[in-house]
Amino acid sequence: MTSQDTATHVLDEVVALEPLGENLYRGRTHEAYANMVGPFGGTTAATMLAAVLQHPERHGDPLALTLNYAGPVAEGEFEIEARPARTNRSNQHWWIEMRQGDDVVTTATAITGLRRETWSETEAAAPAVPAPEEVPSAGADRGVKWVENYDMRFVEGGWDAVAAGEESPGSTTTMWIRDAPARGLDHLALTAMCDSFFPRAFLRLGRPVPAGTVTLTIHFLATADEIAAQGTDFLLGSVHSHRFHGNYHDEAARLWGRGGTLLATGTQLMYFKS
Amino acid sequence: MTSQDTATHVLDEVVALEPLGENLYRGRTHEAYANMVGPFGGTTAATMLAAVLQHPERHGDPLALTLNYAGPVAEGEFEIEARPARTNRSNQHWWIEMRQGDDVVTTATAITGLRRETWSETEAAAPAVPAPEEVPSAGADRGVKWVENYDMRFVEGGWDAVAAGEESPGSTTTMWIRDAPARGLDHLALTAMCDSFFPRAFLRLGRPVPAGTVTLTIHFLATADEIAAQGTDFLLGSVHSHRFHGNYHDEAARLWGRGGTLLATGTQLMYFKS
Repeated sequence: MTSQDTATHVLDEVVALEPLGENLYRGRTHEAYANMVGPFGGTTAATMLAAVLQHPERHGDPLALTLNYAGPVAEGEFEIEARPARTNRSNQHWWIEMRQGDDVVTTATAITGLRRETWSETEAAAPAVPAPEEVPSAGADRGVKWVENYDMRFVEGGWDAVAAGEESPGSTTTMWIRDAPARGLDHLALTAMCDSFFPRAFLRLGRPVPAGTVTLTIHFLATADEIAAQGTDFLLGSVHSHRFHGNYHDEAARLWGRGGTLLATGTQLMYFKS
Repeated sequence: MTSQDTATHVLDEVVALEPLGENLYRGRTHEAYANMVGPFGGTTAATMLAAVLQHPERHGDPLALTLNYAGPVAEGEFEIEARPARTNRSNQHWWIEMRQGDDVVTTATAITGLRRETWSETEAAAPAVPAPEEVPSAGADRGVKWVENYDMRFVEGGWDAVAAGEESPGSTTTMWIRDAPARGLDHLALTAMCDSFFPRAFLRLGRPVPAGTVTLTIHFLATADEIAAQGTDFLLGSVHSHRFHGNYHDEAARLWGRGGTLLATGTQLMYFKS
């Protein structure tokens, strides 16, 4: 932990919510995480989860989160309603909705739960890659502000090919990533990182094209203790697409700790034009 | 198409809903798809999607569906509320909730949308396997009724190892599957098939253990025309887990048509005991 791991990290400002009443919170977009249109979807996802995490009836740690990006989030204030739909002994199901005026801009469901020890095994090992210290940091010159909040170190399928206009035969990007400045890992930071890969259509086509996430599902495969144990270290993320067709493509991401702990999967459907 | 592909197929009885008023439908569980506890989750998912498909305001074909199994569905009647949260020019976002009395038993979100032609490519090719005609049908003696509605032909990681009490070194199951009796493929049948794999914990541990899906996300990677073009032919499904830990494990499934068209991915989080 460093002196930068404090409650004043900009990510904590982004996800800060003011309680307005039962199940209701108010937040606002933050210019530090601006995307092409509206805020970075990863911080929108983290903010929706933050409403659940600070809800007084919350039961357990996040197990799963599905975010549906229903419409553009305008700069400024928004309200989030987070409501437990059902509370069981070992888990809890949540409805979450972000609104601006009369517009629903984001919908989500989340599941929180208590975990206990069982037989444990990781089948999906992290790919063999150089340590982050041996890989240069990617430049932040990608036309969007939010990437400045991350130290990304591409080991495969990096931004350089896109910048150079080179098509790629595969859609895999593998990178080291951590918050910049550093911040101790928690479910909020991990959620945002699950959405931090640039669109796979850019890599395949060798150029930025209109593209955006329609829906993102995160499965937390690690306990809260395992997530906290990553501290401020780099995570290794790898993502690829199964199919591009009919102006949509999927993305399947996995994020490991440096020691090989598989922390989460992130599965997206994106629209794209070509 | 055969004479069995009619509106009287038992799957159509299962997903049949009676409109009760604005956004509200009534259905009931069907004994033909009974699971260990309550109905087969695949048909519950298909029934939730059916409410969207018959909604008078529906705009476009299914793109994505996330089902959260909040609690056991009791035998008998249920109500489904399906409400468009936001309708855009090219897509639409849905809230769906299944209730029995005062209990929320299932929650879901769905996205429907219009598709148009773009650059198209499938990266995830179907595994090389024998044709379904060369593989024997699996027996239906697995302690649950719903499997009798499918012709499943295992080519890797089949049920025999579980029945024999043999642990497996990997979690992959690959199988041919179609409705039995035959039924023309549509989004409803495909949705149910995305949940038709037995739990990966069974395969790894070599024995049935208490296990159940907590959340299932389906991404439809094919157009409605491509799905319909499969007719009554077998689909090839393959599934594996990334990690088993803390009494939860994930499952990542892909389903292709016989000709290699990638139709959908299904991503689950399951609880299990060991």
